[in-house]
This record gives sequence, structure tokens and C-alpha cells, in this order.
Amino acid sequence: MTDQSSNQMWGGRFAAGPDAIMEAINASIGYDQRMAAQDIAGSRAHAAMLAATGVITDNDADAIREGLLTVLSEIESGTFQFSTALEDIHMNVEARLKEIIGEPAGRLHTGRSRNDQVATDFKLWVRDQLDAAESGLLALINALLSQAEAGADWVMPGFTHLQTAQPVTWGHHMMAYVEMFGRDLSRVRDARARMNESPLGAAALAGTSFPIDRDMTASALGFDRPSANSLDAVSDRDFALEFLSTASICAMHLSRFAEELVIWSSAQFRFVTLSDRFSTGSSIMPQKKNPDAAELIRAKVGRIFGANTALMMVMKGLPLAYSKDMQEDKEQVFDAADNWMLALAAMEGMVKDMTANVDSLAAAAGSGFSTATDLADWMVRVLKVPFRDAHHVTGTLVAMAEQRGCDLPDLSLEDMQGVHAGITQDIFTVLGVENSVNSRMSYGGTAPAQVRAQIARWRENLA
Amino acid sequence: MTDQSSNQMWGGRFAAGPDAIMEAINASIGYDQRMAAQDIAGSRAHAAMLAATGVITDNDADAIREGLLTVLSEIESGTFQFSTALEDIHMNVEARLKEIIGEPAGRLHTGRSRNDQVATDFKLWVRDQLDAAESGLLALINALLSQAEAGADWVMPGFTHLQTAQPVTWGHHMMAYVEMFGRDLSRVRDARARMNESPLGAAALAGTSFPIDRDMTASALGFDRPSANSLDAVSDRDFALEFLSTASICAMHLSRFAEELVIWSSAQFRFVTLSDRFSTGSSIMPQKKNPDAAELIRAKVGRIFGANTALMMVMKGLPLAYSKDMQEDKEQVFDAADNWMLALAAMEGMVKDMTANVDSLAAAAGSGFSTATDLADWMVRVLKVPFRDAHHVTGTLVAMAEQRGCDLPDLSLEDMQGVHAGITQDIFTVLGVENSVNSRMSYGGTAPAQVRAQIARWRENLA
Amino acid sequence: MTDQSSNQMWGGRFAAGPDAIMEAINASIGYDQRMAAQDIAGSRAHAAMLAATGVITDNDADAIREGLLTVLSEIESGTFQFSTALEDIHMNVEARLKEIIGEPAGRLHTGRSRNDQVATDFKLWVRDQLDAAESGLLALINALLSQAEAGADWVMPGFTHLQTAQPVTWGHHMMAYVEMFGRDLSRVRDARARMNESPLGAAALAGTSFPIDRDMTASALGFDRPSANSLDAVSDRDFALEFLSTASICAMHLSRFAEELVIWSSAQFRFVTLSDRFSTGSSIMPQKKNPDAAELIRAKVGRIFGANTALMMVMKGLPLAYSKDMQEDKEQVFDAADNWMLALAAMEGMVKDMTANVDSLAAAAGSGFSTATDLADWMVRVLKVPFRDAHHVTGTLVAMAEQRGCDLPDLSLEDMQGVHAGITQDIFTVLGVENSVNSRMSYGGTAPAQVRAQIARWRENLA
Amino acid sequence: MTDQSSNQMWGGRFAAGPDAIMEAINASIGYDQRMAAQDIAGSRAHAAMLAATGVITDNDADAIREGLLTVLSEIESGTFQFSTALEDIHMNVEARLKEIIGEPAGRLHTGRSRNDQVATDFKLWVRDQLDAAESGLLALINALLSQAEAGADWVMPGFTHLQTAQPVTWGHHMMAYVEMFGRDLSRVRDARARMNESPLGAAALAGTSFPIDRDMTASALGFDRPSANSLDAVSDRDFALEFLSTASICAMHLSRFAEELVIWSSAQFRFVTLSDRFSTGSSIMPQKKNPDAAELIRAKVGRIFGANTALMMVMKGLPLAYSKDMQEDKEQVFDAADNWMLALAAMEGMVKDMTANVDSLAAAAGSGFSTATDLADWMVRVLKVPFRDAHHVTGTLVAMAEQRGCDLPDLSLEDMQGVHAGITQDIFTVLGVENSVNSRMSYGGTAPAQVRAQIARWRENLA
Repeated sequence: MTDQSSNQMWGGRFAAGPDAIMEAINASIGYDQRMAAQDIAGSRAHAAMLAATGVITDNDADAIREGLLTVLSEIESGTFQFSTALEDIHMNVEARLKEIIGEPAGRLHTGRSRNDQVATDFKLWVRDQLDAAESGLLALINALLSQAEAGADWVMPGFTHLQTAQPVTWGHHMMAYVEMFGRDLSRVRDARARMNESPLGAAALAGTSFPIDRDMTASALGFDRPSANSLDAVSDRDFALEFLSTASICAMHLSRFAEELVIWSSAQFRFVTLSDRFSTGSSIMPQKKNPDAAELIRAKVGRIFGANTALMMVMKGLPLAYSKDMQEDKEQVFDAADNWMLALAAMEGMVKDMTANVDSLAAAAGSGFSTATDLADWMVRVLKVPFRDAHHVTGTLVAMAEQRGCDLPDLSLEDMQGVHAGITQDIFTVLGVENSVNSRMSYGGTAPAQVRAQIARWRENLA
Repeated sequence: MTDQSSNQMWGGRFAAGPDAIMEAINASIGYDQRMAAQDIAGSRAHAAMLAATGVITDNDADAIREGLLTVLSEIESGTFQFSTALEDIHMNVEARLKEIIGEPAGRLHTGRSRNDQVATDFKLWVRDQLDAAESGLLALINALLSQAEAGADWVMPGFTHLQTAQPVTWGHHMMAYVEMFGRDLSRVRDARARMNESPLGAAALAGTSFPIDRDMTASALGFDRPSANSLDAVSDRDFALEFLSTASICAMHLSRFAEELVIWSSAQFRFVTLSDRFSTGSSIMPQKKNPDAAELIRAKVGRIFGANTALMMVMKGLPLAYSKDMQEDKEQVFDAADNWMLALAAMEGMVKDMTANVDSLAAAAGSGFSTATDLADWMVRVLKVPFRDAHHVTGTLVAMAEQRGCDLPDLSLEDMQGVHAGITQDIFTVLGVENSVNSRMSYGGTAPAQVRAQIARWRENLA
Repeated sequence: MTDQSSNQMWGGRFAAGPDAIMEAINASIGYDQRMAAQDIAGSRAHAAMLAATGVITDNDADAIREGLLTVLSEIESGTFQFSTALEDIHMNVEARLKEIIGEPAGRLHTGRSRNDQVATDFKLWVRDQLDAAESGLLALINALLSQAEAGADWVMPGFTHLQTAQPVTWGHHMMAYVEMFGRDLSRVRDARARMNESPLGAAALAGTSFPIDRDMTASALGFDRPSANSLDAVSDRDFALEFLSTASICAMHLSRFAEELVIWSSAQFRFVTLSDRFSTGSSIMPQKKNPDAAELIRAKVGRIFGANTALMMVMKGLPLAYSKDMQEDKEQVFDAADNWMLALAAMEGMVKDMTANVDSLAAAAGSGFSTATDLADWMVRVLKVPFRDAHHVTGTLVAMAEQRGCDLPDLSLEDMQGVHAGITQDIFTVLGVENSVNSRMSYGGTAPAQVRAQIARWRENLA
Repeated sequence: MTDQSSNQMWGGRFAAGPDAIMEAINASIGYDQRMAAQDIAGSRAHAAMLAATGVITDNDADAIREGLLTVLSEIESGTFQFSTALEDIHMNVEARLKEIIGEPAGRLHTGRSRNDQVATDFKLWVRDQLDAAESGLLALINALLSQAEAGADWVMPGFTHLQTAQPVTWGHHMMAYVEMFGRDLSRVRDARARMNESPLGAAALAGTSFPIDRDMTASALGFDRPSANSLDAVSDRDFALEFLSTASICAMHLSRFAEELVIWSSAQFRFVTLSDRFSTGSSIMPQKKNPDAAELIRAKVGRIFGANTALMMVMKGLPLAYSKDMQEDKEQVFDAADNWMLALAAMEGMVKDMTANVDSLAAAAGSGFSTATDLADWMVRVLKVPFRDAHHVTGTLVAMAEQRGCDLPDLSLEDMQGVHAGITQDIFTVLGVENSVNSRMSYGGTAPAQVRAQIARWRENLA
């Protein structure tokens, strides 16, 4: 840790000189081996098409396709020897294929290039992650629906500025997140539909003179169609950026819910109890249950949006077609995808396991003159007082209650009539928290009946 | 610029003390007045609905709706006096309405709150910008189609790593950007469809006890439906983040094309000549035509993605429902939208005006052994040599040509047969640049016929 | 808001055609007029130097320097007519100078260029902001010192994971922020020292053949020295990025304190009462005091770091020397500086005005077995039990107290000795909150004596 | 790749249920094992101090210190078994220590906590990286100095807007980067000095009641002093953010040079030839030498600034003291540090190996009327024509030359006198490229003599 040692470390790190540096910065096999299954699927589809169009023989195609399955099983079983000298997953697979099947391996790369190959692999990988995100979002939405159903009529404070504003229901709060994650789901589906075009056959950048059938490979790989311009197909990574943007917005939603869980778990709030499985304790303070999972989920938005920033900056100002800068796309997407899936799963688990402290919620809901708006609205509705005037009367009554150290329902009818003569005994029916939430029957409102209607709509959509 | 003066500046800036500081940080009227038309449209729809549902009288509604038109015309004509003390556009409009129509103005705010009001205004504003982006993208795509049509068969070098790789056509290169901007367009449309739900009637956060008709206001404002959860409706800003993400990806595409135009305009490339209108000269060096517009467009991705970063960070970890932090949403979106529209318009103008230097493009296309791949592919296709072996032969021939200081077509048939005996006279038909591009007939390839087919598909889609 | 209207808007915005678009994207006078004072100071220094080195006559220099003062006074009084056709502040000032003094104005630009001129102006502007930030940070630190002094021995809960961990003192918590803002201050000073080199005389990029004296202008403008390489001087903007990075880190610190103030102001915590001046109320709920200023400060980190992101992305990959992209530097820095200064001032105001609710703090400090660590440490210190074993004993005692619904000091000596026989009556002296904080006498610890020593060190440093 | 399989993947990934999810999101041993050496150094210093202050016995301290060396050698030799169940590096080391030395291991953790321990480890790790960055920057600066020395008088075009502006020297261009990397170096040193305070002894957050000596551990670990506030010491990560900001700015500089190398390597520019070691070829196109290393270096700014974004977002709005979110700090810093060091080493290697194509540079320097400014300056200097008028005359002459298809020195004296009668034969001495650069003798200018003076200053500074 002295200058001496750090110089040695510096030297040591790159002791082997320029060649070691170049290998370290250039090789991608350390991470792109995660796309092995996609690479092999793409090559098998390509080989079948080359045979169908007569570019290679059926025998060669069969050998290639069989050989690739062997390679795949070696990789899956962990016996495959990855070589950094072979740089990337494509060359590693092809080199091994040649060892296994010999000469026909050299015909596989006909009519394609590493540029369209890597774009195809990466798209297949991203598409799988979009599917995984869909599954994860659906699982989380279902967990929230269960919570909402259980507590459709549990009252709790609705906050603005973290100050008590009006009472709402637990179910209503849960359903707010269902809407958010529902939009995330729709973004995932849009992104999947948009990116589902096959780059395979774009070759290096210009297409090829071989009579290939791009529809056939597209179809075999589950793509909706081949991409329409070969130069675009190998040059752009907007599908990866849309993946990262979609993940970032979802992670933002997760961070908000996570923040609420952290606050709600504090000794001062006590709104929820998280399960032991998603908390950590302390050997010395057994009462202390740290909401670690919630905090880590809250942090993931940074990591995922950091990846978005990284790739956006990499792509900025790159001329067409492929530039090596684009090799930096994968690690960002891999890391973001892993953490997105993990955050979704952890949040789903926490939601399933958490227990609302119904009494604490109810007590907090009733404090802080939370039904003052109901009083004002009653005057507008029943007494036909203009809204701005009703506000003024209410303010006077709240100030009176605050001064006396009581709550609004504790004021007498005479007290109230002293401020506005038109107030009648009926006013007391709107000052209770239960009545308040039950009255919010506008579409999308917090009334339990509205909440249950929301749940029903979602159940139907998801069925 | 001494400590003295900066202290005074510091003091001077906030000389009026805490109240001035609070007003400076809190008031939004300085920028949210840009939403005046949206605010008034929302209020007019709300008033009509309140009358239709019997919450206010028809007379009051008529007075409100007429009065709001007066306010709008005052704002549009520049005679409206905005007041910082009234904080925001909503209070400015309502206060002026009260001056004009008196008591009924106080009934307008029934059954809503500033929270759903600002969400509605902002969504309407963003929706308008999505429509403007659609128009701007369509105009740019049309400009690119015209360039592609003109130069469907002009040859130019296709680059990878900014090194000549294979010849392509000008039309093909233009169409690559049409595909990119076409996906941007589809993102814009998806974003518009997703966000087109009306927050109006969500009130502060819980909905309202007034018998409002949210479908009616949604429909009047062109929304597809009311948003389904009132808490979500006032708490989330994912529509703004999706707008910024979509703009960022499009700006990334613009930055790439802009970079190409800057490089292509250099004395070393001379691929294009930009019009004087989008360049700036120098009084001393009239030959110097700086591609200012291209450079500024290239820079816009920073600004727009900076806004994306800003709002993402603002929203991170905010508990529900409305928090004042969210007031920071508008300036970011306003600035990003302005610069996006400006960049689209400037790029459209540059594309329309620019002149391809067809001779320079052709000369560059033919240099650098750009048809080496064609030679290899011919051996695979005609001689049935495995691809990897054909590569090896080609490499030897290129090295031979390089050593002799000539190009591939300048080698004799004997030279070639010395390396691979199977090569025949036919080989010379594939070594020309024109033949090369014509041969790339795979779907989406660079052959002029393929390019024209792409153009035709787009013309049809846009018709 | 229909397609029709948005198309019109699109058209309308750029109705005047390409020239209007180019002017809109190219002209900077709309914002760079904020550097007028710096521009004129730079030009006056340059003119004096040109005369001293004999490049222009003393008469011309005098006319130029006087004329520039006239221009400055016109700008300061608001009578100056800025022209967009003249693009930027430099040309606006020079054109007006020519109107005032005629022919000698044409000699001012000798031996310099707009490239070094704008770099000089911008550096002077940024330097002023660093000075303002220093003032703002010192004011905030002083406000925190006053709070720390008042509450050096007020106990409050120290949190980890927002869970009560150990009691600390209010003064200690305030001093933690003094350390953070103190490091921000040191970053500001380092940035100022590093960037204080004069670009003036670097000319377009290569220096000049005129016998200019760059030391003289550097000195006149308060720079420590001229920059050493003319190409670097006009090409780099790392000083602006360091400004934005420094501001971002400080804004991160502000966001953390702001978050605490929002949480502490909630009905559930009630740790502090913010002044009315930095809160907003509601006409209907007078008890509701929204911590608007704190929320807005919390949001500023997004805006400031967004500017950092924007400029970082703009500068990425720009070849030397000046490129027009760099014109995007100023608006980002201006906006970030304005918001940084505003956030510092608002935080200073809030800190000065806020009232700690000493009783609430004390009550919270004593709950939650917050002195469990003290018990364990006592066993290690007095009984020589290994730390990990002491933890185990403490855990057992806390569990016992939790089960009985009491706190640790409510357990009897017999209870304790039942768990560990060595415990003596002395244990009760360490279980009180006051004793706990008083015992944390390690350097930098929370003991009031340590807090007062920290305050004294800071007072001395700042004297 | 069907919905089926992705659901399985989703399920499979977290098949073991909530516990597996929690372990996956919570454990840090997968990456924080990189801090093993720092963790053990910190613990050894702590143990020695505990003995010196009488908190533990000398025998225990000796056992601990010896045992830790054993653990370290196990880790360094790769025989250590890391356990995910033990979560992090701290617990892994302590658990192994207990196996080796038994009971005294339990006394090591006296007077500290994982919170100050991890802060200490991480600071030591970051400090090592700052030292490594210093070494890397010095090596790169030395490589640039060698290039500058070799080509102090090689002429090349100086660009603005990528358009030829004025001739400069190769040495001057290299030295511009020396200035930039020199400022990066100064930022590295400032950051190191600022962060070099020891958190050890801050304990959980409040300090400790043990009579520890924080000066002693600080000194043993090479820190300048203990940090002054225990709450701050465990809560802040500004040192990591300053590391990332400093790295980002340096990476921006690297990206600019990398972009230049990519452009300069193109067939159109041919300004430099990169060595084979930092390029990749193509088996089919041997003439194609892709500047892969330069492209990857260009991309690193995205990755490093992405890490900056991530951690900035993580830290935003976190209340004091430690929150689990902060566990996300390490992977970002590790990845950024690795890539920063790699980019510095690769750039140093490329600079050492690259060959300037002196003839191409000179040819480009003389084209494009690059000495037009010299002509104008001569008129100002010799004929005393105002600068703006001289510009006008020059413009006319350049237009004349352009029309005739010749360069400025090819115009006759008569031609020139026809535009401005005062021009004499002397003018031809300033129109040559060599004369032009030699004349730029202002401090920091491009004249070879100035460049050599710059080099000499740097050599002296670095000696």
C-alpha cells in the first residue's frame, strides 16, 4: 500500500506487456460465453437454411447441426474448455466444432459474418430476458393483488410530502403499484415486439451474394421477420437501450416501493413487519430487524440506470457500421438483467411474506385531521358553498380543534355552527375514517368497492 | 471576482433573505406557464362535466368556460400578468378567472386538486410533443427516402471500425437510418398509446366523493380512458421518463448520423457537401465550411439524456403520493422536447440540402481491396471451397496485390491460379465495385434492387 | 391537441424555414449574455496588454477600454440591445464597441480568437461560482455549527437501516454534515486552484505570432499563470466537468440531509419542526406543514448530476481542437450553478430556522434497547469476556426484556445474573442513554465533550 | 426461448425459493474478497492497538496477528474456502481465524464494528487504485513526451470542427494531452490527500467506550489522521464518488485521443499507423488493420461514467448512518478501476508503438489555405491594418486562389497588390507552413521552440 507496492501492482497487473494488455481489453469470451445457447441455436438454424437453399449439402448440414449439439452439451455440463486466445464465444464454438466434425465446420460461416452472428445471439439473449421480466412482473403483480384483496378495506394514511393528507385503503395503495408494474409489463411487451427481427444474413454489413433465405432462419429462431436493412441490422443497439430504459423505469418503481417498506418498517411507523427471510438481524440486538432486501432493491435502480448511461454513452456518435466499442454492450445488459430479475424476485418474496400492522395503520389514518377535506366537500355538496369558501371554514375548525387538543369529530355541533351556521348533525357522518374512504367512489378512487373492482379487472386481464 | 465581490454576489443574490430564497426555489410559474393552454383545456372540460353531473349549475359552468377562454386569449396575446406570488399556472389562471367572473370561479376546483390538475396538464403537454416528434420523424424519414431514391445505386465504402470493409450503396446507407428513425417512430407511438389515460378526477390522491364522470372529461380531452387508480395517477411520472428515454434513443441515432456528416465533410473524406445554410464560414477562410449544425445535433444526445438522468434520479426512492420533488419534472422535459424537435428539424434540413460527392464516394469505394470478400465468396459458391479456406486464399492474393502496389482486379489470372488452381476468368466479374453491390441481393442487402424495394415498402407504409 | 394542431405547431415552430432553424440551434446570445462582465473584463485586459507590448497604440487601447466600460454600463442598466444575428456575446459587445468608438474597435481582436476568448470568459464565470459556492458552504457550515453547539448533549437515536441502533447526540449528527460539507469546501478550493490558468492568447488553437504577453493578461484577470499549451487551452472543458462533479457530490450530501428533514418532519417521527418560511401550508389543513424546501433540495442532485451527465456525454470522443458541440457547455453549467447556490442557501435558511423537538428525540433515543451495545461492551471491558460471547449474553437479555414488555434497565440484577453470573450492580450505570453517549469518548465519538471539541476545531479553522 | 422455457428459466433461477433469493441479493463475498489484503491489514493494526492500549493482552494480539497472516497466505495461495453463508470478507476471515487460533479471535472485534471495518477496507482499496492511476498516468505522460520530443517540429493540420484551421506541430498536439493527463494526475493526488483519513474506531456509528487509540491505527495503515466524526466516517462514500468522477474525466480525455487515433488510422487520413499489437486484422483482408484497442478505450468512458451514475443514484437521499444500499458501492468502483487502469495501460502501449506518417501529416498541413491567418496577421503587424479589415482582404485572396485552383503562395505579388496595394514581397515568407508554425512563439504556442520548452518543463517536474 506504499507507492512502492502500488507500482509493483501496476507493473504486475500487466507484467506480460502489450500482448497481455491487448488480450485483457480485447477478449470477450470471459462474459459472452453466457450466449452459448443462443449462438448454437443461431448456427443450427443457419446450417439448416444453407442446406435447404443448396449452399451446402444436407450431409454437411447434418454434421454441423449434430456437432453443435455436442458442443452445447459440453458447455452445459461444464466440460468445455474456453480459450481466451479464441477471443469470443463464436470462435470458441466453431473451433471446437471443427475438432469434432472436421472439414464441414469450415462451411458453416458461409453467407454470414461475426457481425450478424453476434447481433443475432445478443437479440436472442435479450429477448429471453424480456420473457423473464414478463414472468417476474406477473408474479409480483399477483403478489400485490393478494395483498390488495386481503386489505381492500384496511384504512391507512395517504401521504403527500410524507405528511398525512387523507385516509386511503391498503388495497388501494397496493393497486397503485399494480398499475405501475402493469405499465412496465406493457413496455416489456412493446420492446419485445419491436426488437423481434432477425439480423441473421445481414453478413458483415452489406448482405451477401449467396442465395440465402432469411425468412427461414428468422422463423426457426422465433423472429417475426428478417430485419429490413443489413447495414442497420449490424450497426444499431437500440433494442439493448430500450431494454435498459424499460428496466430502469421499472427499477425506479421498485425503488419507490422499497423506500416505503424501509420507512414503514421503522420503529416510528410500524406499518408493516417484514419476514425474517428478507431481513437480517443482529446477534446483539435481536429486536433489530434490518430491511436489507428492501434497501438493496432500492439501490438497484442506480445500477441498472448506470448500465443505461454506460451504453448510451458508448453508442453516442459512433459511425456505421460495426465498431469495436459496441463490444461493451453485453456486460452492461447482462448485469442489468441479472439485477432486475433479482430485484423483481426479492420484491415478490417480500410482498408475499410481509404483514400489514392493521391497527397501526388505522390509528395513523385517523390522526392528523385526515378527514378535513371530507368536511369541506360536505359543505360544498350539501350546503352548496363554493369550494374555496368551504376550505376557509374547514381551516377555522381545524385550528379550533388543534387549539383544544382534540380531533374534528370531538367538536360539538354548536362549535361548528359558530363558524358556519348551516352545518347540521349530518356532518358527523363524514368525519369518520371509514366513511371517508367509503365515500371516495369516483372511478379509481380509494373506496373498497372501487378497489375490489380494480382487482377484478386485473384478475380478468391476467386470466 | 475577488472573494469580496463574490460574497457580495452571494449576498446580493439572496439579499431579500429567506422569503426570497423560498420564492426562488418554490415558485414554478416561470416555466409552467408553458402549460397554460393545457391547463385551460383541462379546466373547461372539468367545468362542463361538473354541470353535466349536477355538481354545479349550467350557468356557473358557462361563466367558467367563457371566462377561461378570455384568460386564454389574454395569455396568447401577451397581456396576462403572471404573478410569482401565485406560484404556478393553476393559481394564476384561477385568480384571474375570479377577477373576470367572480363567485362561480370558486366552484371550478370542486372534485379535483392541484395534484390531478398538474398531472393532466403535463400529460397533455407531453402528448403534444409526442405528436410533434411523430411529425418531425416523418419529415426526416421522407428527406432520407428522397436521398436514398436519388442514390440507390451510387457506390460508396461501407466501413467497419472506420476502415473500408465492403462497397455499399448510398441509398442503402440512407435506408439504414430510415430503419432507425422508423423504430424511433414506433417507440413514440407506443409511448403515446400507453400514457393516454386521464388523471383528472383522481383529486389529491384518493378520488372524490362528488359524483364526477371521469369518462366524460377523459373523452373531452382526447384521452382513451380515465386512469384506473387515483393514487397512481398523481404519483407517477413514468410517462415523462418514457418520453425522455425515447427521445434519448432517437438523439443517439441523430448523433451517429451527425458524426458521419462531420467526418464526411472533412477535407480528407469529402463525401458530402453541406449547404451554406447549415454551416458557418469564416471571414478569413472562405473555403472553411464548419458543419456547425451537425456538431450541435451530435451534442444534443448529451442534453436530452442528461434530462433523462435528472428525472430518473429525482424519482428514485420517492414514497407515494405527490412529493414536491416532482416539480422538477417539467423543466427537464421542456428542455429535452425543445432540443429534440430542433435537432430533428435541423437534421431534416441538412439531409434535404446536402449533396453527395458521387465521384469521391465511388473512388473511395473501389480502393482498399474492398471486394476481397466477393472473391472469397465466389470461390465458396463456384468452387465449393469451404469458407475458411477461401478466406485464406484471398488473404494471400490481397497480400500479393498490396506488395505490387496494385488492386485485386489488376492481378493476372495466372497470378491467381498460382495461389489456387481452380480460379477462372469469371473471377473478374465479381471484383468490380458495381458488380459487388449488385450481387448483394439477399433480403435487406445493399444491391440497388433491394434498396429500391426497401424504399417502396416505406413509401407504401407512409402513404 | 389533434394531429392537425400538432402538425401546425411543428410547422409553426420552424415556419421561417431552414434559416430560422439554423439560427435557433446555432445562436448562443440567449444565454451567453450572462458572461458579459467576464467578456468585457477579458477584453479590457487584452487591450491594455496589446498597448503595453506595442501591438496597438495607447490611444487605441484607451478608447477600447473606455468604450467597453460604456458597453458594460449599458448592459447592466438593461438598455443594451442584444442581437441574435450577431450570434454570441463576443460579437454583440464588439459590434456595439465599434458603434461607440469606431475604427479602433477593429484592433481589439488582434492576437486572439473567439476560441480563447470564450474559454477565458467561461473560466472567469465558473471561478466566480466556485467563490460563491465557497461562501454558501461556509454559511451552511456556520449554521450547522450553531445547531451543534445548542444541542451538543441532546440525545437522539442513531439509525442504521433506519432502525434504532445506538443513542447519539444532536450535535454529533450535525457535525457529521459539517465534515461532509467541509470536504465539499475543500473540493471547491482544489478545483479553483487547478483551473486558475489563463487561456487568453491561445488564439484559435496554435498561439499567435504577435508579441503578446500572456503573463500580463493572466495577472490582470486574477489567474495564477497562463495555460501552458494553446491547443489544450481552447479544447478542453475538464474544469467545467470538475465543477459539475464537485457540485454533484455536494448536492448528494444535501439530498441526504433533506431526506432526513422530510422524514423527521413526519407525524410519525416529529424530530424537528421546520419554520413556516421554508414550508407550505394548506388552506384546508392548517396543521399540515409540507417540507417543500427540503423536498426541492433533495431533488436538486438529479438536476445537477443531469448536467454533469450531459456535458460528459457532449465531450466524449471529440477530436481536438474546438468543436461546436462544446457550445452546449454553458447552459448546463449555468443551470447547475444556479440550483447549487439556491440549494445551499435554502438549506442554510432551513437549518437556521429549524427547531429540534428535544423531548421527542430523547424519548426515541431511549426506546428500542438502544443501549444493548453498552451492556455488551461493559462485559468485555469489566469482565474480560470475549466480545462475541458478550454479544450472545446481551442477546439473551434483550430477548428476555422484549418478552416481558420492558426495557433493559427494568430487568433485575438477579435476572441478569441468571444469564451471566459475573454481572454486578455497576451494569445499571451503562444502561442509561445519557451515560451511553457520555461514554463514547473515542476520538470523533458522540460524547458531548468530543462533539464540543469538534466544534472548537472547526471554529478555529474558520476563524 | 419460448414462453415455456423462459418461465422455467425464471423459475429455475430462483428455484430454491426465498432463501436463495435473499442469499443472492444479500451476500457480498463474491466480490468483496478482493479486499482481503486490506481487511487483514486493518485487523492487524487494530489488534496491535488493542494490546498497546491494554484492551486485550499482548499474547492475544500476537496470536491474532500471526493467525491473520496465515489466513492471508491461504487466500493468496488460493487454498482459502470462501463461504457465501458467511456473507462477506470480514466474517469469512474472522471465522477462519477462529478455527486457527481459537478463543482470542473473539476479542479482535472489540471496539470496532463491521461498519468502520468495511469503510477502512474500502478506503485502503481505493487508495491503492489512486496510486495505481498515478503510476499509469505517469507512464502515459512519459510515452507522450517521447512522441512530442521526436516530432517537436513535424507539421500537421490543426483542426477545428474537423476542418483544417492552422498548421500545428505533432509535438504540440501530443503536449496538449500531456496537459490534460497532467491535470488528471493532479486530481488523483488531491483525491488521495482528501480521503486519507482513517474510519477505524468509528465503530457502528457513535464511537466506542473502549480507550482505543485511533491515531495509532491511522498511522499504522498510512492514513494521515483519524476521521473527525464517527457518524460521518461510516455514512459517507464521497471518496468513492470523487474517485469515479476523477476517473470519468480522465476517461473522457482518453476517449478524445482514442477518437483521433481511429480517425487518423482511416484510409482517408493515414496520419498514423498503429502497431499490430493493438490492432486486429482480418484473415480475408490483410490490409485491414482495425484499431480495436483505440475503439475499446473510447468506449471505456461510458462504462466508468456509468459506474459514477450508479453510485451517485444509490447514495441519493440516503439517511445516516449506514444503509445496506451502500453495499452497491464496491462492484461499481472495482469495475471502473479495472477498466481505467486497463485503458491507461492500453493507451500507453499504443502511444509507444504508434508511428506518425510524417509525409501525410505535412501534406495535409499545407493544404486548405491553412496559412490564411498568417497572411492576415502579417497585414496587421506590418501594415497596421485593423484586424477585421485584414480578415476581409485575406478572404478575397483565398477566394481568388480557390477559383484558380491554386494555393495562396501560388498567387503573384501583383494579384495580391490588386486586392491591397500595401502588400510586399515579404508576404511570401509567412505563407509557408514551416514559417507559420515557427512564428507562433507566444507562450504555449505551437512553435517547435515553445513545444521543446513545454517538454523540458514537464521533464523537470517529473524528475
